[in-house]
Amino acid sequence: MDFPTCYLLQGLSEEKLKRFAAITHETVMSKEQWIYHENDRAERVFILKTGIVELVTLVDSYLELPVSIIRSPGDCFGTSSLIEPHLYSLSARCQEDGTVLAVDRYDLRKLMDEDREIGCVIMTNLAEHLLSRLKETRQELKLHFKNLLKFMHS
Amino acid sequence: MDFPTCYLLQGLSEEKLKRFAAITHETVMSKEQWIYHENDRAERVFILKTGIVELVTLVDSYLELPVSIIRSPGDCFGTSSLIEPHLYSLSARCQEDGTVLAVDRYDLRKLMDEDREIGCVIMTNLAEHLLSRLKETRQELKLHFKNLLKFMHS
Repeated sequence: MDFPTCYLLQGLSEEKLKRFAAITHETVMSKEQWIYHENDRAERVFILKTGIVELVTLVDSYLELPVSIIRSPGDCFGTSSLIEPHLYSLSARCQEDGTVLAVDRYDLRKLMDEDREIGCVIMTNLAEHLLSRLKETRQELKLHFKNLLKFMHS
Repeated sequence: MDFPTCYLLQGLSEEKLKRFAAITHETVMSKEQWIYHENDRAERVFILKTGIVELVTLVDSYLELPVSIIRSPGDCFGTSSLIEPHLYSLSARCQEDGTVLAVDRYDLRKLMDEDREIGCVIMTNLAEHLLSRLKETRQELKLHFKNLLKFMHS
Protein backbone atom coordinates (compact mmCIF):
# COMPACT_ATOMS: atom_id res chain seq x y z
CA MET A 1 0.00 0.00 0.00
CA ASP A 2 1.28 3.46 -0.90
CA PHE A 3 1.30 4.99 2.56
CA PRO A 4 4.25 6.74 4.23
CA THR A 5 5.97 4.60 6.89
CA CYS A 6 5.18 6.14 10.26
CA TYR A 7 6.51 4.90 13.61
CA LEU A 8 2.99 5.03 15.07
CA LEU A 9 1.78 2.44 12.56
CA GLN A 10 4.66 -0.02 12.75
CA GLY A 11 3.40 -3.56 13.16
CA LEU A 12 -0.02 -3.00 11.55
CA SER A 13 -1.03 -5.37 8.75
CA GLU A 14 -1.83 -4.10 5.24
CA GLU A 15 -5.54 -4.40 5.99
CA LYS A 16 -5.30 -2.38 9.24
CA LEU A 17 -3.17 0.24 7.47
CA LYS A 18 -5.96 0.65 4.90
CA ARG A 19 -8.47 1.27 7.68
CA PHE A 20 -6.14 3.90 9.12
CA ALA A 21 -5.50 5.51 5.71
CA ALA A 22 -9.27 5.85 5.21
CA ILE A 23 -9.55 8.38 8.06
CA THR A 24 -6.64 10.63 6.94
CA HIS A 25 -7.18 13.94 5.15
CA GLU A 26 -4.49 15.36 2.91
CA THR A 27 -3.88 19.00 3.79
CA VAL A 28 -1.65 21.60 2.14
CA MET A 29 0.55 23.84 4.29
CA SER A 30 2.61 26.89 3.32
CA LYS A 31 6.00 28.11 4.46
CA GLU A 32 5.90 30.11 7.72
CA GLN A 33 2.40 28.83 8.54
CA TRP A 34 1.82 27.81 12.17
CA ILE A 35 0.09 24.43 12.20
CA TYR A 36 -0.58 24.69 15.92
CA HIS A 37 0.73 26.41 19.03
CA GLU A 38 1.88 24.97 22.35
CA ASN A 39 -1.09 24.47 24.70
CA ASP A 40 -3.69 24.73 21.92
CA ARG A 41 -6.41 22.10 22.16
CA ALA A 42 -4.97 19.12 20.29
CA GLU A 43 -7.59 17.75 17.90
CA ARG A 44 -5.44 16.28 15.12
CA VAL A 45 -2.31 14.21 14.64
CA PHE A 46 -0.26 14.78 11.46
CA ILE A 47 1.90 12.60 9.22
CA LEU A 48 4.31 14.41 6.89
CA LYS A 49 4.07 13.71 3.16
CA THR A 50 6.26 16.52 1.77
CA GLY A 51 7.85 19.70 3.15
CA ILE A 52 9.58 20.45 6.44
CA VAL A 53 8.01 21.20 9.81
CA GLU A 54 9.84 22.64 12.81
CA LEU A 55 8.75 21.84 16.39
CA VAL A 56 9.63 24.54 18.89
CA THR A 57 8.89 25.61 22.44
CA LEU A 58 9.01 29.07 24.00
CA VAL A 59 11.64 29.46 26.74
CA ASP A 60 10.32 32.90 27.38
CA SER A 61 8.03 35.26 25.49
CA TYR A 62 11.07 36.41 23.53
CA LEU A 63 13.03 33.18 23.13
CA GLU A 64 12.22 30.10 21.06
CA LEU A 65 13.94 26.76 21.62
CA PRO A 66 13.98 24.36 18.63
CA VAL A 67 13.04 20.81 19.69
CA SER A 68 13.00 18.88 16.42
CA ILE A 69 12.71 19.02 12.66
CA ILE A 70 10.19 16.85 10.84
CA ARG A 71 11.51 16.27 7.33
CA SER A 72 11.18 12.59 6.38
CA PRO A 73 7.92 11.49 4.78
CA GLY A 74 6.10 9.46 7.42
CA ASP A 75 7.45 11.46 10.36
CA CYS A 76 4.53 12.37 12.57
CA PHE A 77 3.80 15.16 14.99
CA GLY A 78 0.94 16.39 17.12
CA THR A 79 0.69 13.05 18.92
CA SER A 80 -0.36 14.83 22.15
CA SER A 81 -3.79 14.85 20.51
CA LEU A 82 -4.00 11.11 21.17
CA ILE A 83 -3.72 11.36 24.95
CA GLU A 84 -5.05 13.34 27.89
CA PRO A 85 -5.12 16.30 28.43
CA HIS A 86 -5.28 16.71 24.62
CA LEU A 87 -3.13 19.85 24.49
CA TYR A 88 -0.21 20.27 22.09
CA SER A 89 3.03 20.19 24.07
CA LEU A 90 5.04 22.07 21.39
CA SER A 91 4.38 24.51 18.53
CA ALA A 92 4.63 23.37 14.90
CA ARG A 93 5.65 25.75 12.12
CA CYS A 94 5.97 24.91 8.46
CA GLN A 95 9.49 25.66 7.21
CA GLU A 96 8.86 24.67 3.60
CA ASP A 97 5.62 24.32 1.57
CA GLY A 98 4.31 20.79 1.76
CA THR A 99 1.46 18.41 2.48
CA VAL A 100 0.47 16.45 5.57
CA LEU A 101 -2.01 13.71 6.30
CA ALA A 102 -4.19 14.94 9.15
CA VAL A 103 -6.18 12.57 11.37
CA ASP A 104 -8.96 13.80 13.60
CA ARG A 105 -8.52 12.38 17.10
CA TYR A 106 -12.20 11.41 17.38
CA ASP A 107 -12.02 9.41 14.13
CA LEU A 108 -8.90 7.66 15.40
CA ARG A 109 -10.45 7.00 18.83
CA LYS A 110 -13.45 5.42 17.10
CA LEU A 111 -11.20 3.24 14.94
CA MET A 112 -9.10 2.17 17.95
CA ASP A 113 -12.22 1.31 19.96
CA GLU A 114 -13.64 -0.74 17.09
CA ASP A 115 -10.33 -2.48 16.49
CA ARG A 116 -8.44 -2.95 19.77
CA GLU A 117 -5.43 -4.40 17.97
CA ILE A 118 -4.93 -1.11 16.11
CA GLY A 119 -5.34 0.70 19.43
CA CYS A 120 -2.76 -1.46 21.20
CA VAL A 121 -0.20 -1.17 18.40
CA ILE A 122 -0.52 2.62 18.06
CA MET A 123 -0.41 3.24 21.81
CA THR A 124 2.58 0.91 22.32
CA ASN A 125 4.45 2.65 19.48
CA LEU A 126 3.58 6.04 20.96
CA ALA A 127 4.78 5.02 24.44
CA GLU A 128 8.05 3.73 22.93
CA HIS A 129 8.57 6.99 21.07
CA LEU A 130 7.83 9.09 24.17
CA LEU A 131 10.23 7.04 26.31
CA SER A 132 12.97 7.55 23.77
CA ARG A 133 12.29 11.34 23.68
CA LEU A 134 12.28 11.38 27.49
CA LYS A 135 15.68 9.65 27.58
CA GLU A 136 17.11 12.13 25.06
CA THR A 137 15.75 15.08 27.02
CA ARG A 138 17.18 13.71 30.28
CA GLN A 139 20.49 13.33 28.49
CA GLU A 140 20.41 17.02 27.47
CA LEU A 141 19.51 17.97 31.01
CA LYS A 142 22.53 16.04 32.31
CA LEU A 143 24.79 17.89 29.86
CA HIS A 144 23.47 21.28 31.02
CA PHE A 145 23.93 20.16 34.59
CA LYS A 146 27.54 19.10 33.98
CA ASN A 147 28.31 22.34 32.13
CA LEU A 148 26.83 24.37 34.93
CA LEU A 149 28.96 22.54 37.48
CA LYS A 150 32.10 23.07 35.41
CA PHE A 151 31.22 26.73 34.98
CA MET A 152 30.74 27.19 38.73
CA HIS A 153 33.96 25.41 39.61
CA SER A 154 36.07 27.26 37.05
CA MET B 1 -10.94 -5.25 45.31
CA ASP B 2 -8.06 -4.61 47.69
CA PHE B 3 -5.44 -3.56 45.14
CA PRO B 4 -3.35 -0.38 45.26
CA THR B 5 -4.52 2.29 42.78
CA CYS B 6 -1.89 2.56 40.07
CA TYR B 7 -1.98 5.03 37.17
CA LEU B 8 -1.22 2.19 34.73
CA LEU B 9 -4.47 0.43 35.66
CA GLN B 10 -6.83 3.39 35.65
CA GLY B 11 -9.95 2.64 33.69
CA LEU B 12 -9.83 -1.16 34.13
CA SER B 13 -12.96 -2.84 35.46
CA GLU B 14 -12.94 -4.87 38.68
CA GLU B 15 -12.82 -8.08 36.67
CA LYS B 16 -9.83 -6.94 34.57
CA LEU B 17 -8.07 -5.74 37.73
CA LYS B 18 -8.45 -9.23 39.15
CA ARG B 19 -6.82 -10.73 36.06
CA PHE B 20 -3.94 -8.28 36.47
CA ALA B 21 -3.62 -8.95 40.22
CA ALA B 22 -3.32 -12.67 39.49
CA ILE B 23 0.03 -12.18 37.73
CA THR B 24 1.64 -10.03 40.45
CA HIS B 25 4.17 -11.39 42.94
CA GLU B 26 4.65 -9.74 46.31
CA THR B 27 8.34 -9.16 46.94
CA VAL B 28 10.13 -7.84 50.00
CA MET B 29 12.88 -5.23 49.63
CA SER B 30 15.33 -3.87 52.19
CA LYS B 31 16.74 -0.41 52.76
CA GLU B 32 19.72 0.42 50.51
CA GLN B 33 18.94 -2.49 48.18
CA TRP B 34 19.25 -1.74 44.45
CA ILE B 35 16.14 -3.07 42.72
CA TYR B 36 17.68 -2.47 39.29
CA HIS B 37 20.30 -0.34 37.58
CA GLU B 38 20.03 1.97 34.58
CA ASN B 39 20.49 0.01 31.32
CA ASP B 40 19.88 -3.38 32.98
CA ARG B 41 17.60 -5.65 30.96
CA ALA B 42 14.10 -4.68 32.13
CA GLU B 43 12.11 -7.82 32.87
CA ARG B 44 9.70 -6.62 35.55
CA VAL B 45 7.48 -3.67 36.37
CA PHE B 46 6.84 -2.85 40.04
CA ILE B 47 3.95 -1.40 42.03
CA LEU B 48 4.75 -0.06 45.49
CA LYS B 49 2.84 -1.47 48.46
CA THR B 50 4.93 -0.12 51.36
CA GLY B 51 8.30 1.59 51.75
CA ILE B 52 10.08 4.25 49.70
CA VAL B 53 11.98 3.84 46.44
CA GLU B 54 14.28 6.44 44.91
CA LEU B 55 14.79 6.68 41.13
CA VAL B 56 18.15 8.14 40.13
CA THR B 57 20.38 8.53 37.10
CA LEU B 58 24.14 8.89 36.92
CA VAL B 59 25.35 12.25 35.54
CA ASP B 60 28.87 10.95 35.68
CA SER B 61 30.52 7.98 37.34
CA TYR B 62 30.81 10.08 40.52
CA LEU B 63 27.58 12.05 40.45
CA GLU B 64 24.01 10.83 40.96
CA LEU B 65 20.98 12.91 39.95
CA PRO B 66 17.70 12.13 41.80
CA VAL B 67 14.77 11.89 39.37
CA SER B 68 11.83 10.93 41.56
CA ILE B 69 10.70 9.38 44.81
CA ILE B 70 8.15 6.58 44.84
CA ARG B 71 6.37 6.70 48.18
CA SER B 72 2.61 6.37 47.69
CA PRO B 73 1.15 2.86 47.62
CA GLY B 74 0.21 2.20 43.99
CA ASP B 75 3.04 4.29 42.52
CA CYS B 76 4.76 2.22 39.90
CA PHE B 77 8.24 2.09 38.44
CA GLY B 78 10.24 0.03 36.00
CA THR B 79 7.71 0.66 33.21
CA SER B 80 10.53 0.62 30.61
CA SER B 81 10.13 -3.16 30.90
CA LEU B 82 6.84 -2.83 29.00
CA ILE B 83 8.36 -1.34 25.86
CA GLU B 84 11.28 -1.76 23.49
CA PRO B 85 14.25 -1.88 23.96
CA HIS B 86 13.33 -3.33 27.42
CA LEU B 87 16.15 -1.61 29.29
CA TYR B 88 15.61 0.29 32.53
CA SER B 89 16.09 4.01 31.88
CA LEU B 90 16.86 4.85 35.54
CA SER B 91 18.20 3.07 38.63
CA ALA B 92 15.89 2.19 41.54
CA ARG B 93 17.14 2.02 45.12
CA CYS B 94 15.10 1.16 48.18
CA GLN B 95 15.23 3.99 50.71
CA GLU B 96 13.09 2.26 53.35
CA ASP B 97 12.21 -1.42 53.91
CA GLY B 98 9.01 -2.31 52.12
CA THR B 99 7.12 -4.56 49.73
CA VAL B 100 6.38 -4.28 46.03
CA LEU B 101 4.15 -6.15 43.62
CA ALA B 102 6.35 -7.33 40.78
CA VAL B 103 4.97 -8.27 37.37
CA ASP B 104 7.00 -10.22 34.86
CA ARG B 105 6.83 -8.53 31.46
CA TYR B 106 6.16 -11.81 29.65
CA ASP B 107 3.17 -12.57 31.89
CA LEU B 108 1.83 -9.08 31.26
CA ARG B 109 2.45 -9.32 27.49
CA LYS B 110 0.48 -12.59 27.46
CA LEU B 111 -2.39 -11.03 29.41
CA MET B 112 -2.44 -7.96 27.12
CA ASP B 113 -2.44 -10.14 24.00
CA GLU B 114 -5.27 -12.28 25.36
CA ASP B 115 -7.26 -9.23 26.43
CA ARG B 116 -6.67 -6.32 24.05
CA GLU B 117 -8.75 -3.97 26.17
CA ILE B 118 -6.32 -4.40 29.08
CA GLY B 119 -3.47 -3.82 26.61
CA CYS B 120 -5.00 -0.63 25.22
CA VAL B 121 -5.79 0.82 28.65
CA ILE B 122 -2.33 0.09 30.10
CA MET B 123 -0.47 1.40 27.05
CA THR B 124 -2.60 4.57 26.85
CA ASN B 125 -2.01 5.23 30.56
CA LEU B 126 1.71 4.63 30.09
CA ALA B 127 1.89 7.01 27.08
CA GLU B 128 0.04 9.69 29.10
CA HIS B 129 2.44 9.29 31.99
CA LEU B 130 5.50 9.44 29.73
CA LEU B 131 4.22 12.58 27.98
CA SER B 132 3.72 14.27 31.31
CA ARG B 133 7.27 13.30 32.43
CA LEU B 134 8.60 14.56 29.08
CA LYS B 135 6.88 17.92 29.59
CA GLU B 136 8.28 18.23 33.12
CA THR B 137 11.78 17.35 31.91
CA ARG B 138 11.55 19.91 29.07
CA GLN B 139 10.46 22.46 31.65
CA GLU B 140 13.55 21.74 33.75
CA LEU B 141 15.70 22.00 30.64
CA LYS B 142 14.23 25.42 29.90
CA LEU B 143 15.01 26.58 33.43
CA HIS B 144 18.64 25.45 33.10
CA PHE B 145 18.81 27.17 29.74
CA LYS B 146 17.45 30.43 31.15
CA ASN B 147 19.82 30.29 34.13
CA LEU B 148 22.76 29.65 31.83
CA LEU B 149 21.82 32.66 29.71
CA LYS B 150 21.46 34.87 32.80
CA PHE B 151 24.79 33.62 34.08
CA MET B 152 26.53 34.37 30.80
CA HIS B 153 25.03 37.84 30.55
CA SER B 154 25.80 38.80 34.12
